[in-house]
Amino acid sequence: MNFAKELERVALIVERRLETLLASSAGTPTSLDEAMRYAVLGGGKRIRPFLLIESGRLFDVDERHSLDAACALECVHCYSLVHDDLPAMDDDDVRRGRPALHIAYDEATAILAGDALLTLAFEILSSPATHEDPGIRAELVFNLAKSAGWRGMALGQAIDLDAERQDLHEEGVARMQALKTGALFCFACEAGAILGRAKASDREKLRAYAMALGQAFQLADDLLDAQGDAEAIGKAVAKDADQGKATLVGLLGVEGAKARLAALVAEAENALAPFGPKASTLIETARFIAERRI
Amino acid sequence: MNFAKELERVALIVERRLETLLASSAGTPTSLDEAMRYAVLGGGKRIRPFLLIESGRLFDVDERHSLDAACALECVHCYSLVHDDLPAMDDDDVRRGRPALHIAYDEATAILAGDALLTLAFEILSSPATHEDPGIRAELVFNLAKSAGWRGMALGQAIDLDAERQDLHEEGVARMQALKTGALFCFACEAGAILGRAKASDREKLRAYAMALGQAFQLADDLLDAQGDAEAIGKAVAKDADQGKATLVGLLGVEGAKARLAALVAEAENALAPFGPKASTLIETARFIAERRI
Repeated sequence: MNFAKELERVALIVERRLETLLASSAGTPTSLDEAMRYAVLGGGKRIRPFLLIESGRLFDVDERHSLDAACALECVHCYSLVHDDLPAMDDDDVRRGRPALHIAYDEATAILAGDALLTLAFEILSSPATHEDPGIRAELVFNLAKSAGWRGMALGQAIDLDAERQDLHEEGVARMQALKTGALFCFACEAGAILGRAKASDREKLRAYAMALGQAFQLADDLLDAQGDAEAIGKAVAKDADQGKATLVGLLGVEGAKARLAALVAEAENALAPFGPKASTLIETARFIAERRI
Repeated sequence: MNFAKELERVALIVERRLETLLASSAGTPTSLDEAMRYAVLGGGKRIRPFLLIESGRLFDVDERHSLDAACALECVHCYSLVHDDLPAMDDDDVRRGRPALHIAYDEATAILAGDALLTLAFEILSSPATHEDPGIRAELVFNLAKSAGWRGMALGQAIDLDAERQDLHEEGVARMQALKTGALFCFACEAGAILGRAKASDREKLRAYAMALGQAFQLADDLLDAQGDAEAIGKAVAKDADQGKATLVGLLGVEGAKARLAALVAEAENALAPFGPKASTLIETARFIAERRI
């Protein structure tokens, strides 16, 4: 199997399903509908949905049965981008090579569309169409809410905003990134395990993998920001340093960060070694994330 | 039973339970924790939790078993106030007689705290502590997400923002308010019915009651805004007219609005008549809402 092709194939089925889930009801679409579609549709690698689907596959969950959960997760990711880009937050005007939502529409619409996407994620997860077993649905909701909420992603963003005003040490930056980025990666893998009714010890392995992967992803992102090409990335670069943001590249230097990245990929691989060849796609995902240039 | 005393008693147990649910974990509370507590704690009539608990009581649900769902609903209500007050939305500086959250903290914290409260509501609803049956938990989540989301409350707010720019006719205003205010009232009653495993025909009656009640609540609110005393209400008054907002009082006149209010209370009472004396507290709630002066 060609990894890049598989990633593209899954991104396409995720995009199509999101199209359906975000389709307007009969009648004229409202500006809220349009803004939500703008925020979610039109590309992206769909790494989190891919991780969820591949984690499920590890426990023999067919992608048709993990697709809606994967789309719910992507809605949460997109909501977080929309709100993070707001002027009061990170104040980014460009996202995925297009105007950020609050530029394309306005701030009020961006706030509302983010709220509505977050809410939609829970509507999808709790829908009987997502899984026939309500126990699975309730567990997915519970885990996503914990990952995205005040002890997870939202806390990470709060610490990140604070860090622009105060210096964070290496441990503090790592914790902030584990929350801000890592929490949704952990949910992606956890959700696959929930859908596959995986045993606790297998969940633990997958969790170790997801933690390493989340850190690798963020480190690769920071390296791109420090070295990158704005046109290829589709958003502003070198913003972190300009804003005095705490990043590990700033603390470790570029070479130090690259060494850490390699160690994280090895950690992710080791965590999944007990699964044997079944985990090869997830392991390739870790390598892909570390090596990405855009 | 004295209705006002009962409302106060329930508000107090809701406040205490919210205190516990929003308690910081060990360690220094973050500014996000503090902002969430500021947004939720410290008073309010807790009408929506009261409705949820009383609706449950109609089907013999003890308040100990509806309290957490009631608190989840209040978190969603408070999130909606925090985001609606933002400068980009309704731009209100005062809420419940205190500075709005974005004034007391800052805009970024207000956006994040709102996000985190919305997410926490789903964490609470899907928690095994809320109900032992995961089918009930999943149904609560599904219904709250639909009520609060892009076809419910969020859509109502989007139409409201739009209405500041374009004239709405009476039917349009009624629809906007049914979404913006009515949807959470409907969920309050629906959740009581879900917890009580009510049959479909009983749910339908309760739904009719909630729709009338939501409209009555909004109309009473608009009347207060048109006639009210800023100090007693604890927020700015006559803002709607100043902002050219579409309200039914503007369209019907004060006397017309009062007549409509009386008709809505009668509608709410009729919907619950088949339940007999068991529904007396819910019927008193409708009267209380119509007659409130603050």
